[in-house]
Amino acid sequence: MEKNNAIFSCCSSNSITKDIQGARFSLFPMSDNYIDIILSSIKKVNTCNIHSQTDYTSTVYRGTDIHVIDALKAAFIYSYRDKIHMSMQVTFSRGCPGDKAVDYKLCHEPLKVNESDICDIHFPVLVKFSLYPLGKEDYMEDIKSVINDGIEMNVYHGSGHYVSFLKGDVQDIFKYFEKIVLDCSNTIKHYVIEATFLVNLPEEV
Amino acid sequence: MEKNNAIFSCCSSNSITKDIQGARFSLFPMSDNYIDIILSSIKKVNTCNIHSQTDYTSTVYRGTDIHVIDALKAAFIYSYRDKIHMSMQVTFSRGCPGDKAVDYKLCHEPLKVNESDICDIHFPVLVKFSLYPLGKEDYMEDIKSVINDGIEMNVYHGSGHYVSFLKGDVQDIFKYFEKIVLDCSNTIKHYVIEATFLVNLPEEV
Repeated sequence: MEKNNAIFSCCSSNSITKDIQGARFSLFPMSDNYIDIILSSIKKVNTCNIHSQTDYTSTVYRGTDIHVIDALKAAFIYSYRDKIHMSMQVTFSRGCPGDKAVDYKLCHEPLKVNESDICDIHFPVLVKFSLYPLGKEDYMEDIKSVINDGIEMNVYHGSGHYVSFLKGDVQDIFKYFEKIVLDCSNTIKHYVIEATFLVNLPEEV
Repeated sequence: MEKNNAIFSCCSSNSITKDIQGARFSLFPMSDNYIDIILSSIKKVNTCNIHSQTDYTSTVYRGTDIHVIDALKAAFIYSYRDKIHMSMQVTFSRGCPGDKAVDYKLCHEPLKVNESDICDIHFPVLVKFSLYPLGKEDYMEDIKSVINDGIEMNVYHGSGHYVSFLKGDVQDIFKYFEKIVLDCSNTIKHYVIEATFLVNLPEEV
């Protein structure tokens, strides 16, 4: 393979790509039945307002912030099984200079198409996450700001090396991610949020 | 909780913290037997040259680059089970201005204490990963460089939205991560590498 081709071929950033929110996620149900759990939940999500693509490692949603989060929340909620320990690993990304104006759907309708089916489902979630604002020197200020939001919204659950923890009902956790994603999209040119959601941990937290 | 305390209390970066490599990792065996697989493999790792700490969500190793990678490689290899699909999610981090000079062991002996027990074990691994250099404007150059290393070392397996893929024998994959971690530690003040390792995928890749 020729060097650098992979990067050079995707450095055609333009005005559209800065509006595309991406979420690349993987579901990891710690169960012998993991294939059924993953495939059935992914299939159930209404993806009419976003672009969705699944490869061997993960699924990518690309669209406007609120519709990507609506679909991601649905995928996570549909994959929940009573007593089965599961993890969802998500990379939110917006504004990458290497992004291309392909594989996206930018829907500006405010109606979240999955929300009415999932808004009454409740279970506790533990999350570890980090925000990485790229290409700027004062990035610690952005990080402080999202942590303060977590404290205000009553989902912040302390910090450890390299991560902050969140704990709360699934509805509150996704409300928090919708807020910080929308805020970061307004204030940071290129950012990534890495988050791992956990349910049904074998030990009480 | 009072705002900002979490960040302010850990902003005591000093000359020691810039030498501490961190790896926070979680093992996700997609099996009913996940607890035994995780606990038995973590226990088997020789952690005498690093600091190791396990919380509800993950395990953190902190020390010099090569000893952290040696221990991480051992944890991953010991958790491999024939035919069981498993994922390991790792955050490498070095140079965070919020890091504290606690919870670390900086061993400068060159001998990797786990390597002789694991260097003859081989199985195929698929990886998705991203490098995030923080606090600098020319971060795309660093990303190009690690991708070129992957091409040269014959483990690069293409790119997708937000990630690059690697494919190869477990020994070659860890050789690659050792190289890029050492290089990034030399050239980037604060960086994070997020990687997800996958084995025994249900579909042929």
